[in-house]
Amino acid sequence: MRIVVRCVMVPALALCAVLAPALAGGADWSEQQLATAGALRDRALSGTSAYDHVSSLVTEVGPRSAGSSGDAAAVRWALNKLASLGFSKVRTQDVLVPRWVRGNAEVTLAGSTPQPLVAVALGGSVGTSDEGVEAQVVEVASLDALNALPATTVGGKIVFINQRMERTRDGSGYGAAVRNRSEGPSAAGNLGAVALLIRSIGTSDQRYAHTGAINYRVDAPRIPALALSNPDADQLARWLKPGKPIRLRVKSTSRELPATWSANVIGEIPGAERANEIVLLGAHLDSWDLGQGAIDDGAGVAIVIEAARLIGRLERKPARTVRVVLFANEEFGLSGAREYARLVGDEAARHVIAAEADLGGGAVWRIQSKVAPDAVPAVDAIREALKPLALEGGSNEGRGGSDLGPLRALGVPILDLSQDATNYFDVHHTTNDTLAQIDAKTLNQVVAAYAVAAYMAASKTGDFGRLEASP
Amino acid sequence: MRIVVRCVMVPALALCAVLAPALAGGADWSEQQLATAGALRDRALSGTSAYDHVSSLVTEVGPRSAGSSGDAAAVRWALNKLASLGFSKVRTQDVLVPRWVRGNAEVTLAGSTPQPLVAVALGGSVGTSDEGVEAQVVEVASLDALNALPATTVGGKIVFINQRMERTRDGSGYGAAVRNRSEGPSAAGNLGAVALLIRSIGTSDQRYAHTGAINYRVDAPRIPALALSNPDADQLARWLKPGKPIRLRVKSTSRELPATWSANVIGEIPGAERANEIVLLGAHLDSWDLGQGAIDDGAGVAIVIEAARLIGRLERKPARTVRVVLFANEEFGLSGAREYARLVGDEAARHVIAAEADLGGGAVWRIQSKVAPDAVPAVDAIREALKPLALEGGSNEGRGGSDLGPLRALGVPILDLSQDATNYFDVHHTTNDTLAQIDAKTLNQVVAAYAVAAYMAASKTGDFGRLEASP
Repeated sequence: MRIVVRCVMVPALALCAVLAPALAGGADWSEQQLATAGALRDRALSGTSAYDHVSSLVTEVGPRSAGSSGDAAAVRWALNKLASLGFSKVRTQDVLVPRWVRGNAEVTLAGSTPQPLVAVALGGSVGTSDEGVEAQVVEVASLDALNALPATTVGGKIVFINQRMERTRDGSGYGAAVRNRSEGPSAAGNLGAVALLIRSIGTSDQRYAHTGAINYRVDAPRIPALALSNPDADQLARWLKPGKPIRLRVKSTSRELPATWSANVIGEIPGAERANEIVLLGAHLDSWDLGQGAIDDGAGVAIVIEAARLIGRLERKPARTVRVVLFANEEFGLSGAREYARLVGDEAARHVIAAEADLGGGAVWRIQSKVAPDAVPAVDAIREALKPLALEGGSNEGRGGSDLGPLRALGVPILDLSQDATNYFDVHHTTNDTLAQIDAKTLNQVVAAYAVAAYMAASKTGDFGRLEASP
Repeated sequence: MRIVVRCVMVPALALCAVLAPALAGGADWSEQQLATAGALRDRALSGTSAYDHVSSLVTEVGPRSAGSSGDAAAVRWALNKLASLGFSKVRTQDVLVPRWVRGNAEVTLAGSTPQPLVAVALGGSVGTSDEGVEAQVVEVASLDALNALPATTVGGKIVFINQRMERTRDGSGYGAAVRNRSEGPSAAGNLGAVALLIRSIGTSDQRYAHTGAINYRVDAPRIPALALSNPDADQLARWLKPGKPIRLRVKSTSRELPATWSANVIGEIPGAERANEIVLLGAHLDSWDLGQGAIDDGAGVAIVIEAARLIGRLERKPARTVRVVLFANEEFGLSGAREYARLVGDEAARHVIAAEADLGGGAVWRIQSKVAPDAVPAVDAIREALKPLALEGGSNEGRGGSDLGPLRALGVPILDLSQDATNYFDVHHTTNDTLAQIDAKTLNQVVAAYAVAAYMAASKTGDFGRLEASP
């Protein structure tokens, strides 16, 4: 095999990459482009400004749940940040978002020695009356177990779904348990329960309860729904174990306010030749209200801004435009992603590929995709360009982040850079989502992967085909 | 060296210990006694009920700050537990305790995007008015730095002492930083500050603020005093860094109630020969209100109960009585320890030695003492009997737990079994002090050390001398 050493100038730094062109995706990229990809990679690994970006967002804005004053401040922050970093066509898209306010939650063992449990209201849940509700608890092992119970067992009681989320690198444990949260409130409400408690959909044994959105069905009574931290779910399970009836008092002052306005924030690194063709890098600007929104999704915001910024600093820009989209309100119904897709019109066909960073600050360990079958070798070539990161291959059934769903439905191919989620759900959606949970060096690794992937997608001779559009 | 293998029967288990009598403390113990000590050790290492005891306390009682309903429940729990485990002379000593109620604390960046910081009121601190206080922040690096400032700099402001506690195995980092909490409120009050914020005296980068008692000086204005979690202290420090004036809103509804009654709870394993001579094993029954009181000091309660219980199950009891004292209100002024010492009278001279478990569930790594110089070899012999635990030696300037202070002042010698405190101050005095933080196997190691030390002290031919009494 012929080994070529190519060097490329990036500002303030000359970097070299060792190339093996036989592995390099054939006619899709020139040797010069592959050398640039390798240089970008090494540049990012040696240090980026991603940590500074997330620190800036967390420090200057902090929590920014949809429609809050923090959300509005985040939109201003993003406009200023993208403009000051030299992005082009920096702009907003207005997005109507729901507005839900948490208030306070109290869950207490009823009786003469009232032990409090750490709990948070689930996103969108209704509050209790001012006095709260007091009732006996009925414990179930899962949503399915709840659905198997008769209304006579559940009526008038507080349901406790005590299912522990599994810790996995790919985050699949979340998907397996999250139905308890999304579907549990209406399942319990339909059986006549007066409130729902779930064990947090999170992996930490620390005392943080995990919030997240619920879906009330139109045909079910709306009942208060809260999550207990894992140690508090353990405590409740110990109380229930002797088989004696346990009564809890539950109080929540959460409430819905009228819908209000937020915005997607967009900025671009214009392509040098086919600027109307778009490689989309997404993240979401909103966060839950409990933490600082550092890992969810300040990290993703920082990763995609920095990856695009590094591409923008290259002497030879890629052919296509790299567009950063910071979506409004991912957490509470994907309002921003839906509005982006609604407005995209004819441009949808010119979205060559899309990727979203929305899995915290963990290292990339795998590249998956959802592209036309004959474009899979190009995904392999991107992984090959990231060889020092020793990434695993995945399937061509990747889904990317939640915000990509509406674009995927329009046929836009997806690049799915899987970040290590082993510890992500220790912190995700909790009070503990702070800057202290982010490691700057690991963030650089993620930036390297996104920068190379976006650069190569934007430089590729052909495209990644189209997906079958779904309704 | 002659090696003797001795076997001893403990209920349901025959255990053998390999002895090297040349190392075994001369005439203080018989070979049979040393064999029993080794058997006790191995029995404890192979499994104890200590975890069950702390689980029972945490589950059935939970938080139990001085004078609360949980405190009263803890006294009942302890009486029942000691009686059901077969302790003799189970009894209480009434103790008058102060009663302070936390209420709610809010610390928020003032302005149009009010970012909340995670904070807790410090124990004993006064609340703010209903509206709270809003003022500019003045940051200092330490208590000494605060004391060096003129009143003109501090007057009307919120003082922020931003000193990070050092993580150490022996817990010495706590002592070095805790003056910020105990002395800070009056230092700031005397300079005209309207409130004090301190960086938590804790090592965790998780979002838990750390409470603990303060001391108001009689000559200083009483101002509200709160602790910020480390990530929130970081956030405030980042806000202050650009040098622009930062204003915070501080609100606390904490308040003092009239003093009320709690109790020390005492139980004994009677000595076989000199039952009026006492080896005291102490722990404290109260806890802070934020967590479940598992590591502070449910663990200590479980350790000393279990160590004494194992001694009580021996076929041949030691000569002296092993007395377990579960002190009331350690956290908020050592009321129980002072009352115990006040009531001890002539019995003080018959307290041969005392030890307290009040450093969580970490493994014992060192044995120190404060005994007469000629009794130091006996301490070495105890360490030798625990040889498989590979304990380090320490000085003869050990202090033991806080509750031993009043007894030490009466001349009672001290055995100081140092537990590994490396991670203790991640959890101590925070909401996160739950059963999930305790490892059952490590707790067995601690029980082994306490059981052997108490057994040997209670079997020793001579005593440990007396300390010089201090006023």
